[in-house]
Amino acid sequence: MSEKAMSSRPRAERARQVADTLRRQIADAAFADGVLPDEHTLGTRLGASHNAVRDALALLRAEGLITRRQGIGTTVVMPKYGHGLDQLTGLAEALTGHGTVTNEVRTAHSVPRPPAAIAERLDLSRDTEVICIERLRRLGGIPLSLDTTYLTADIGRPLLDRDLTGRDLFALIEETTGERLGSAEVAVHAVTAGPDTAALLDIPSGAAIFAIERLTRLADGRAVDAESIHLRADRLTLRATLRREPAPR
Amino acid sequence: MSEKAMSSRPRAERARQVADTLRRQIADAAFADGVLPDEHTLGTRLGASHNAVRDALALLRAEGLITRRQGIGTTVVMPKYGHGLDQLTGLAEALTGHGTVTNEVRTAHSVPRPPAAIAERLDLSRDTEVICIERLRRLGGIPLSLDTTYLTADIGRPLLDRDLTGRDLFALIEETTGERLGSAEVAVHAVTAGPDTAALLDIPSGAAIFAIERLTRLADGRAVDAESIHLRADRLTLRATLRREPAPR
Repeated sequence: MSEKAMSSRPRAERARQVADTLRRQIADAAFADGVLPDEHTLGTRLGASHNAVRDALALLRAEGLITRRQGIGTTVVMPKYGHGLDQLTGLAEALTGHGTVTNEVRTAHSVPRPPAAIAERLDLSRDTEVICIERLRRLGGIPLSLDTTYLTADIGRPLLDRDLTGRDLFALIEETTGERLGSAEVAVHAVTAGPDTAALLDIPSGAAIFAIERLTRLADGRAVDAESIHLRADRLTLRATLRREPAPR
Repeated sequence: MSEKAMSSRPRAERARQVADTLRRQIADAAFADGVLPDEHTLGTRLGASHNAVRDALALLRAEGLITRRQGIGTTVVMPKYGHGLDQLTGLAEALTGHGTVTNEVRTAHSVPRPPAAIAERLDLSRDTEVICIERLRRLGGIPLSLDTTYLTADIGRPLLDRDLTGRDLFALIEETTGERLGSAEVAVHAVTAGPDTAALLDIPSGAAIFAIERLTRLADGRAVDAESIHLRADRLTLRATLRREPAPR
């Protein structure tokens, strides 16, 4: 099929492909000054029609990645940072060098009798106290995530007196226990933000976010930290380098 | 804070927490017969009011995870499968045992002069031919993902004669080259589906999906396969087990 035939493929498909390429380039900080080339240049570079480029830019604007202003052009709203899925890191740790993470502590208290679902997740019997900490996390003053954590009492109680506003829980746990954490099982969902979550994260209701469930264990394998994280997907990309296992025999 | 005080926390927060728990349990196939307990039982188990449970179920219905029918109750729409981010696997490989993956080949052709953005991603000069393959992938007959791939010509050309309908590209590449793949860099975005993508994936426009950029390399490190994947987030959860690195010194 010739290039001509390719560019006659339906406009919506070309728009999707252009949006994919630009989304990747925005996440890779390819537009160093945050300004995208004009539509004509984009079309030439990406092998797409003017209409496909315009549709792609509309998709990216709906995702909150770009703004378009008369006389200024198309600009990236804010940098999109990577959060690695290769190893276990706290948010502030992962974003070292990208700005200051500050946390608004929404709640930090003991729950004497946690709901069954929480107790089960931490391998506790129903009547065992847990500590609940919920924080709205900001990077450079702008909301990034809402983290709700349930911790076993032995691990969580000492944290209540620590700097929950300025520090990652992982770092605090390691300081108070004197031990490095072990591992975590992570499940990543993509969902649309309900009105309440959207208001807290300062995004439009219905925007796509990551909903992440993370169960963190000490080095001895004991589950101590069950988290639900709602993460702004316009500000963070999840990244990993995957290796191929040897062929099965 | 007592349990009473906890349950007086704002309804929207409790609804979010209940939705998080139920989403996790649905992904973990905790409701073996696909039927959720009634609202009263859920409220007791999750330590939440009737209103918070009802709001949570509305959120999950909006995500396409559950349906609610008079006289039948609340049921899981379909199982949610895990796709591991621990190692590099094709979709059919990852879903072994969960049903048959079939692919509708939407395009499979040579692109003599790829757009600059594609050529750069594959470390090719602008006038080097690539192969484009786009497939709509279904599990059990229901759309799961839309994968658009650009392959270097040496790797991609032999695939055009192979079983693109029934097989993972990874397996086909390894068969034709006689070598195991090496690694891939993966970037995961959460976005809302535009009308065209939504129609192809058979989901409502505006539903949250994963948009994944994956660049796959041979064992010698050469990039050969640049993919954009649009993945239904109501059908797949991305999973990983992360380990903590030793403390920095």
